Amino acid sequence: MSPPELFSNDPANTHEAMMEATYRALCTHGYANLTIQKIGEEFSKSKSLVYHHYDGKDELLLDFLEFMLDRFATEIIDTGADDPTDRLQSVIDLTITEPLSEERASFRRTMIELRAQAATDPAYREQFTRIERLFHDHIADLLREGIEQGTFRDVDPDQVASFLLTLIDGTMLRQTTTDDGAITSARRELEIYLQDRLIADQQ
Amino acid sequence: MSPPELFSNDPANTHEAMMEATYRALCTHGYANLTIQKIGEEFSKSKSLVYHHYDGKDELLLDFLEFMLDRFATEIIDTGADDPTDRLQSVIDLTITEPLSEERASFRRTMIELRAQAATDPAYREQFTRIERLFHDHIADLLREGIEQGTFRDVDPDQVASFLLTLIDGTMLRQTTTDDGAITSARRELEIYLQDRLIADQQ
Repeated sequence: MSPPELFSNDPANTHEAMMEATYRALCTHGYANLTIQKIGEEFSKSKSLVYHHYDGKDELLLDFLEFMLDRFATEIIDTGADDPTDRLQSVIDLTITEPLSEERASFRRTMIELRAQAATDPAYREQFTRIERLFHDHIADLLREGIEQGTFRDVDPDQVASFLLTLIDGTMLRQTTTDDGAITSARRELEIYLQDRLIADQQ
Repeated sequence: MSPPELFSNDPANTHEAMMEATYRALCTHGYANLTIQKIGEEFSKSKSLVYHHYDGKDELLLDFLEFMLDRFATEIIDTGADDPTDRLQSVIDLTITEPLSEERASFRRTMIELRAQAATDPAYREQFTRIERLFHDHIADLLREGIEQGTFRDVDPDQVASFLLTLIDGTMLRQTTTDDGAITSARRELEIYLQDRLIADQQ
């Protein structure tokens, strides 16, 4: 597998190189078959460096998860757009979209495998709860701003954010675990919902 | 763990008893740590029966998955209700609800762990695709019926079904893997969406 766009061709430091090695190993072997040894094999520098930094597979994977979720959050949140409508569009374009590039699809599969660990492991659960709150606040804030500006109707920003984030999570789950290709259709309905419920009538 | 309501106290046959043993073992040990040996330990009859029926853990788990998804589908689809509004309400009450009983929460955790396997395993993917299509058709059919009767507005039944099923999947993922408790709020927004978009004005 060629280096995913998620990582620059030239890792900034040893930590980033280790995260990239973890990502490659996870894409190749999946969570259940992953060992710290296999991660070491993907690492261009000395394998012993990986053992030196982490006590085991789960310590390394949790560090990886924090790193990746922060990258993903930065991508979605720091779009450079000012306008609430553009910021909302950007969240939706990055999350509720089909088809995915092979790189994106691979990233989502990896994230779903790790996310399933959160069903039973509190440390994983804490990471995913943290990132959901971050996304929630981002969406609720842009809604609040749009309401203040009069671009959006006077909806409950937290309630609409909860609804949208549930749709985003459902998209990720369906796209990674089924072949039914229903996202394009769900997205069309979402556009109708946003138009009817959110977009204020233009004078 | 006491026998979950999902199973009767008196399994109808050996197959059902084996499925219950698998469910208990999965709840106790999780997918990654599960072995066919551990399933055998939960089985009240001879352990060798399990080995006799299945070649390995994944063959048994796929059979279990088919069994459980069919039960779950039956519960949601065969509600005894005739009216499209009641049938839709019943789907939503069974899927987008909070808080969950410990038994339901446990069932969902188990399903999410198996569903994550579908990210990389085509046999799991096939099962989850099959069940998504079943739910989709159930929802689209009841919408179609409601539109014909004039209870629902003239929406695109497949598009609305895709949207609702994505919300249902998102609910399952969020509830099992995060602690943010956002489902009550998402559900309130869903009621508004249904009222605005679907329910025909009464004369």
